[in-house]
Amino acid sequence: MAKEQFVKEIADIETDFPQWYTDVVVKTKLVDYGPVKGTMVIRPYAYAIWENIQRELNARFRAAGVENAYFPLLIPMSFMTKEAEHVEGFAPEVAVVTHAGGAKLEEPLVVRPTSETIIGHMYGKWVESWRDLPLRLNQWCNVMRWEKTTRPFLRTSEFLWQEGHSVFASAEEAEEETLAMLRLYEEFAKTVLCMPVLTGRKTEKEKFAGAVATYGMEAMMHDGKSLQSGTTHYMGQNFAKAFGVQFTGKDGVLQYGYTMSYGVSTRLIGALIMTHGDSRGLVLPPPVAPVQVVIVPIAQKKEGVLAACEELSARLTRAGLRVKIDDTDNSPGWKFNEWEMKGVPLRIELGPRDIESGKLTVFRRDTCEKEDGFLLAEAEETVKGLLAEISASLYARAQARMEERIVGASSLEELLEGVDGGNFVRAGWCGERACEDKVKEFAQATARVMDTECDLPTCVCCGKKAKHAVFFARAY
Amino acid sequence: MAKEQFVKEIADIETDFPQWYTDVVVKTKLVDYGPVKGTMVIRPYAYAIWENIQRELNARFRAAGVENAYFPLLIPMSFMTKEAEHVEGFAPEVAVVTHAGGAKLEEPLVVRPTSETIIGHMYGKWVESWRDLPLRLNQWCNVMRWEKTTRPFLRTSEFLWQEGHSVFASAEEAEEETLAMLRLYEEFAKTVLCMPVLTGRKTEKEKFAGAVATYGMEAMMHDGKSLQSGTTHYMGQNFAKAFGVQFTGKDGVLQYGYTMSYGVSTRLIGALIMTHGDSRGLVLPPPVAPVQVVIVPIAQKKEGVLAACEELSARLTRAGLRVKIDDTDNSPGWKFNEWEMKGVPLRIELGPRDIESGKLTVFRRDTCEKEDGFLLAEAEETVKGLLAEISASLYARAQARMEERIVGASSLEELLEGVDGGNFVRAGWCGERACEDKVKEFAQATARVMDTECDLPTCVCCGKKAKHAVFFARAY
Repeated sequence: MAKEQFVKEIADIETDFPQWYTDVVVKTKLVDYGPVKGTMVIRPYAYAIWENIQRELNARFRAAGVENAYFPLLIPMSFMTKEAEHVEGFAPEVAVVTHAGGAKLEEPLVVRPTSETIIGHMYGKWVESWRDLPLRLNQWCNVMRWEKTTRPFLRTSEFLWQEGHSVFASAEEAEEETLAMLRLYEEFAKTVLCMPVLTGRKTEKEKFAGAVATYGMEAMMHDGKSLQSGTTHYMGQNFAKAFGVQFTGKDGVLQYGYTMSYGVSTRLIGALIMTHGDSRGLVLPPPVAPVQVVIVPIAQKKEGVLAACEELSARLTRAGLRVKIDDTDNSPGWKFNEWEMKGVPLRIELGPRDIESGKLTVFRRDTCEKEDGFLLAEAEETVKGLLAEISASLYARAQARMEERIVGASSLEELLEGVDGGNFVRAGWCGERACEDKVKEFAQATARVMDTECDLPTCVCCGKKAKHAVFFARAY
Repeated sequence: MAKEQFVKEIADIETDFPQWYTDVVVKTKLVDYGPVKGTMVIRPYAYAIWENIQRELNARFRAAGVENAYFPLLIPMSFMTKEAEHVEGFAPEVAVVTHAGGAKLEEPLVVRPTSETIIGHMYGKWVESWRDLPLRLNQWCNVMRWEKTTRPFLRTSEFLWQEGHSVFASAEEAEEETLAMLRLYEEFAKTVLCMPVLTGRKTEKEKFAGAVATYGMEAMMHDGKSLQSGTTHYMGQNFAKAFGVQFTGKDGVLQYGYTMSYGVSTRLIGALIMTHGDSRGLVLPPPVAPVQVVIVPIAQKKEGVLAACEELSARLTRAGLRVKIDDTDNSPGWKFNEWEMKGVPLRIELGPRDIESGKLTVFRRDTCEKEDGFLLAEAEETVKGLLAEISASLYARAQARMEERIVGASSLEELLEGVDGGNFVRAGWCGERACEDKVKEFAQATARVMDTECDLPTCVCCGKKAKHAVFFARAY
């Protein structure tokens, strides 16, 4: 498409990670800033990643028996106030439509920040009998939360996401689904984004507005900060009561359903950039990379070179791979830089000598090393094998970093030292909000998730008996 | 999911088509009404149709070299006023965000009714050189137009659509793309929706606000009314000038680009319902039907029946078909009614005798007739063949109806008689707005599209020399 000046300079990833991030997302044309403050344009290179994420998640949702649907964007203001905690949490950040069709509206309408209320309203209409349950729907849509400080993908006033909403007849089933979806997200993060995550229950302070319990998955970014990458919420009967989601049970008794919800967003694109990126720019995991293999012709004006590239591209495409030939007039060196910055997992350099010898030379983006000696005739299996290796190596690298960087602490000072050093700190917590607040004040770190077991004796803050082992970290 | 009371009664399609439509879309659970007036909930059965439409169109766009992206929902009010005709056309029907994040906004923001302005703004930033052109992007999103009278799918305040927006270096290229996309839509309508359409240029009165020329495809509904089912617009330099979309040409001269856009929406779901539906309810075209084959077990409690149904379902699914087994406790007769109303193209009834004899009995939704004597062992080829036959027969039936119901007229009275009789009327038109207005006043019919050739001598209204042969019709 556009043939802009290639700009090598991206900020140094080790010394100025925030600027590195901004440089990379803009210069690789993942994103641009929209005209309204805090909004972003998702450009084709990022949107293609999102489509790959959607395809992979849709397959998992479908296998789990969840169906897609679409609910309206605009929610009557009065809906927001029906669940007391919910309105408190979301009211400060909603965008409000007050005029439409040339007239002032009788009731202001909220642009959905999340859809528990409007979906609760519809479920209240639809659910009548135990036979209608479970009811498990998902929607892919845009949502809006007016944020003061924004960054592309990580925090924008509008973002794209999926939100799943289910009603069950019993608390047990709804709680089990809340954990099942957390496991689904974890498997997806690992397999598709090559991204290790910590999962667990959130503290009361960090839970979703209106939930009984929130579970999150947290990923460690390059700088050791945490990024919340997906959440699942068990609502108990809170929303069912607010919206009259009632059913007649097998026993003939009218009762409220139990609801849960779960979501991941375009934030995942930010997560994979900050998990895998390096000093040269993006490093995209093969399962979601828009281009998995770029073919760079060497001496492309020589007879037969471009034809050989086309033939190889066609073969790899037939094998189900996403392939691009860069046959622009730029020099090979320029092209190498460009596609390295854009994070393409595998580069094939194909020139007269390779064609003559029937050999294949590749450049792996994960190791930034060339490998040669492969047979051109076996390109399909070779490339597939290498992409699988790259996925595994990206995961292993991120996993090793996270394991190295989870440290313990038995005092606030140690906790501060830990997060200052770019670590997650696993420490005991008594369960009191005051201590959680103190940690935040002292170390600018928050409780990301609680571990399932508490093997730590005392609270890192007050020294009393610990109730939970908590992963504390600075977070995006 | 829900097991609601089966309601046979849908209004008679011949005597009360509007009520038939409402009954069908609600009772087959395609749609429900949202809490805000004019909004709809797209339920799983309709959303699955939309996903099939998206998949088919995405494949065509990709093959044509168009990439997907996503632009922000909210547009600064000032953008709307930059193209004079555009603001006049859309201002009366926009929804406006005036407050966000707990404060009044400095500038009101419009919920996009279409995205020419915001995409024009971004293209103005991105396009610099002839090397950046053509720039061809598409987005799938929600849009909002505040309408007074609404009907599910046909006209709702919020709907889902795709909007493609391209910039070219020359008028010729942009005009050619406008026609190419119209042909793409026509082929899609024919192949995927099994729906014949008339395509052609719209009159000045009917064109898009801000366009130089609009082209439409119009489909004939069961009642002989027309439904605009897709449009493409050539904008000339109107939006390029309003948003500074300028490039330096090969000649070194700075000049404005030429833009065009094109879109289809969830309205297409309404189009296929009203094109193919019959007295029993929906008749869904096989390429988009969420369930292509429903298997109804006969004597399902007898040993081996459900197992045989599962096996057949697995075989058909492996063959790439969308299959469902109805193993609920309802009677076979109840199931037949239910799935006929839901428009499933093919029903297989499988019972002990079929299993024993290795034969297959099917019910075709297009003809409402059973066919038997097929071999169970050849189910895959048989079903695929039948689905192809059904697609062809649906198209042929709709095509025959449209051909029968295009009549001529040489006076306003004849034109009125034509549209009263549920026809499209092909008549001469002098090209004057006054005559077009008169036709609307006299016959409540509008110019749908102009034919490419004018073989008619005189204007149906004023009797002067005809400039265009126009298809007039009542329209949704």
